[in-house]
Formats: sequence, structure tokens, C-alpha cells
Amino acid sequence: MLMSRERQASLRAEVPLDVESKTVAIIGGEGGMGRSLNTLFSDLGHDVSSADLQTPLRPADAAAAADVVIISVPIRETRGVIEQLGPLVRKEALLMDVTSIKTDPMAAMLASTEASVVGTHPMFGPGVNTFQGQRVVICPGRGDAWLDWARQMFTARGLVISEATPDKHDSMMAIVQVLHHFKTQVLGMALSRSGASLEETLHFTSPAYLLETYVTGRHFAQSPDLYGPIEMLNPDSNRVIETFCKAAADLADIVAAGDQEAFNQVFADVRAFFGEFTDEALEQSGFLIDRLVELSAGRSST
Amino acid sequence: MLMSRERQASLRAEVPLDVESKTVAIIGGEGGMGRSLNTLFSDLGHDVSSADLQTPLRPADAAAAADVVIISVPIRETRGVIEQLGPLVRKEALLMDVTSIKTDPMAAMLASTEASVVGTHPMFGPGVNTFQGQRVVICPGRGDAWLDWARQMFTARGLVISEATPDKHDSMMAIVQVLHHFKTQVLGMALSRSGASLEETLHFTSPAYLLETYVTGRHFAQSPDLYGPIEMLNPDSNRVIETFCKAAADLADIVAAGDQEAFNQVFADVRAFFGEFTDEALEQSGFLIDRLVELSAGRSST
Repeated sequence: MLMSRERQASLRAEVPLDVESKTVAIIGGEGGMGRSLNTLFSDLGHDVSSADLQTPLRPADAAAAADVVIISVPIRETRGVIEQLGPLVRKEALLMDVTSIKTDPMAAMLASTEASVVGTHPMFGPGVNTFQGQRVVICPGRGDAWLDWARQMFTARGLVISEATPDKHDSMMAIVQVLHHFKTQVLGMALSRSGASLEETLHFTSPAYLLETYVTGRHFAQSPDLYGPIEMLNPDSNRVIETFCKAAADLADIVAAGDQEAFNQVFADVRAFFGEFTDEALEQSGFLIDRLVELSAGRSST
Repeated sequence: MLMSRERQASLRAEVPLDVESKTVAIIGGEGGMGRSLNTLFSDLGHDVSSADLQTPLRPADAAAAADVVIISVPIRETRGVIEQLGPLVRKEALLMDVTSIKTDPMAAMLASTEASVVGTHPMFGPGVNTFQGQRVVICPGRGDAWLDWARQMFTARGLVISEATPDKHDSMMAIVQVLHHFKTQVLGMALSRSGASLEETLHFTSPAYLLETYVTGRHFAQSPDLYGPIEMLNPDSNRVIETFCKAAADLADIVAAGDQEAFNQVFADVRAFFGEFTDEALEQSGFLIDRLVELSAGRSST
């Protein structure tokens, strides 16, 4: 890949001076996330190779040779690939994954090898413009030296690190990802089944509706092959989804009954949950609303 | 109210030169929306009076005297106030309301008086910084001259006008408002019942989760007395809410069954509904995501 001199210079400056170049093998290196990881580690001065189904470099050879072996394959393939390649990873090397679920891949990695193990979940898609400020969750597995190395590398690229056990990660992602994806999907389904056309509703849009519709439209432009496994394989999914469906049924009853008192109690309960965060929400959403007023005004009236 | 010379000058420039000053009585003029309407019509050069429960001016006297009588009272009070004051409105005057539901208030207005009637739904809260670009839905009732006047006034203040029958308005608002408010409320309820603390989840936030959480926090900072009637009194509410709950149950089944094929079909169906709007959604949400990456990075990691 060609880089401008300026970009090379600025990237070199990011590499901690006392870090030596490692060989990094990305299994699934031709996928979107694989290529993103390639950029991330190459720019830090490491010697990155990509092994995928169609590459001349075979995954088994890459896994046996590299200092760092990163499993970046579809969620449903992850355990199988780990069980196949883990035993080949050198004992002094690092086996790492980037799966959106952490309990099962971590258990598979720890069982498959005596090498160091670090689980990660980069919370951004392959299409991001910059790593700066993106979040990555790290699950410590085995081996402190490589754990420190992983922290250093992500920090050097400006990523924000959250650390958690695999269980904690998955229970948090059941809320941060599963609950919110599920909600967006249900909204999209309800809209598409409403009998109205989208264009028609947009003639009557409020800024809030336009925002939700952008978020929903964006969601469904992504691949269901990404979201399906995240929702189906998270061990906490069904609990969270049941909570959502129960809340919907409860609120539907309240609205159908016209029970304003119960409706007020819902607001009181949820407000208590949000607590002081409400102030931040009001402040930060203000700029969004202003921008969206402009956008919704731009959509012509009938 | 004191105004700078500059503001007075710019506001005078907004008034169409051939429009004469009218007397405008706002029934419920001391409420948030009433005060907002007072500003809107005063700044256009009209002679605005406010009649409310505590004002020296009695609503009945105001309604009998004014050229334009605007009903701006809580939704649940609207029909009663219209039935009481409508018969007092002069035949050559305009009776107008600003209720978020349109079928019932329009029927009440048309039945209560022989005056001209225009229904409106200003789709913004009392707290907005500017009328410019905000949307107002107008439902023509009776009398073309006053209908034109209402259009002129809102246009002069930079509002975007959508026109619809009361039925169409309510069916569109069942989607634009009811469905989205309901979804946000269910999400807030599910979050508050999830067993996790909000602060804990924010240590693992993605930009998308932060955005949703701002939107949800903002929603619950508003009054349930506003949202309750909008959801309970819209004639299309129950149909839309049932569609939402059915979609949630369908998707819950698909996720619990691990049925990726059915999940893909959901995406295909919703994507077809969104159609070309998807491109706009991707483009316009890009700027939001970038800003939210900064904000979520600003929230410290554990």
C-alpha cells in the first residue's frame, strides 16, 4: 500500500520507541475486519501477513510461524478455526480473537493452546475513518506480557480500552448491542408492516422521527450475517429480549386501558434509572436536534 | 418584553406588508405552547392576548372578542374547552387549535361554531430556539380566507407546512409519534429492568448505544402528561402498537430458534421498505456517528 511521506512520518511517531516489530498473522485477513486489523498493526511497524481461504499463505502455516495470531473469522466459524489452529500456535506466541461474543471463543482459545491468550472485541466496523476514539474491549486470558503488549498497541492507535471478563463482556453486550439491535429491528419491521409508505411519513416528520429513521435505515443497510449471530449466540440474549417483549406488552396494556397513572409510574421508574445521566442526555442531544431540524426542514412538504 | 432594535427590525421585515394586525386570543396562553404562540404572533405584529385559568382576561370574553381564537390547552381538556367557547366565537372570526390529535378536536370545532376553522399541529415543543424550519401540520376546516391567513403567518415565521385531513394526520402521527414514543418507552423500561446500572453499560458503549441512550434519556425527561394522551387518544394507536408487539414476538422467536434464514428475510423485507432512503440514511447519519465517536471516547474506560 502506498502512503504519503507525511502519513508515514506521523504513523512512525505513534510507535513506542522500545517496541520491537512482531510478526502478526491475521486468520481471515481478507475480510473487512481483517483488513482493518492489517492497517492497524502495519501502521505500528509490525510485519503483518494475511491468511484466508484464497491466500497463498495457508492459515495453518501462518498460525505456526507468527508471534501474534489473530482469529478474525465469522462468529459461527470462530470455535472451529480456533480448535484447528490453536494447537499450532507457538507456546511463546499470542493467540488473540476479535469476536463480538467473548465467553465461547475465550474458552476455546484457552483450551486449544498453551500460548498466551487475549480476547478482544473491537467495537467498530471495518468502514471507520479513524481508529482514534473507537472502543475495544479486552478480556485478559493467559500471559501478562502479551496482555500489556496488546494494551500498548491499541492505545498507540488512539483506541479506548475497556477491560472485562468474558461473562461481563457478554452480559454488557446483551444490553449495548443485542437489546438495541433488537429494538431497531422491531421498529423497522413495524414500520414496514404499518401499511404507510416511508415517503408519506417523511412528509410529516419531526426531527426525532427523522433521526430514528436514519438510524433504522442505516442498521438494515448492514449485513444480517453480522447481526444474526451477535443476537443468537450471546448467552444473555434471550433474557434481555424477553425483558423487552414483556415491557412492550405491559406498556401496550397501559396505553390500551388509557391508564395515565400507570403511565406516569413508568416515567418515574425509568427516570430514576437514568438519574443524573439525564442532564448529559439533554445537553448532548441538543446539538443533534438542531442539526436534524435543518435536515427535516429540507425534506419538502406536500 | 424588551427587544433589541436589531431584533425588532428583522422581525418587522418578516411581516408581509399587506397584512393588517389582528386581535389574537390564546386560550391557555400561560402554558408553554401558549407562550410560544404568543411570541410567534406578536412578532408578526398582531395584538395578542392571553386567557388562562389565572389571567384577569376570562377565556369566554377573549373568545367572544378576538379575530383569531387559538385553543392551546391540554389534549384531554380540548374538546370541553372547544364546546364551551366555540359558540362564543364571532362568525367572521377564526377558531384554531394546536392539538397533537386532529380528528376529535376538528370535529368539535366544526360542530361548535359557524366561524372559520383551521386545525394545526405545531410539531415542536415550547422550548425551541427558533421557529425557522420547524414543522406545522395544517388541517383545513372551514373558510378559505382564514386558511390562507394561517398559511401566510406560519410561512412568514419560517415554519414548514404540511397539509392533511384530520384522519390522515392522525394515521401519520400514529407512526411518526406514537410508534416512536412507544419504542423509546419500551427501550427505557427494558433498560431499567435489565439489572445493569446505566453507568456500567456506558463503560462499554458504542456510538450507536450512546446515541440511543441520549434519545431515551431525553424522552423520559419530558412530561408523561404530554406523551400519555398522544398515545392513548390517537385512534390509530392500538393498531400500530399491536403491529410493534407482534413484530417483537416474531423476531424473538427467530432469535431464540437461531433461524438465520428467517432473520435474513426480515432484513430483506425491511430493506425493501426503506428503498432508496437507505442512501440518505447512510450519508446523513455519518456526521452523527463521527460526533458520537468523540463523545463516547470522552466517557472514560474502566
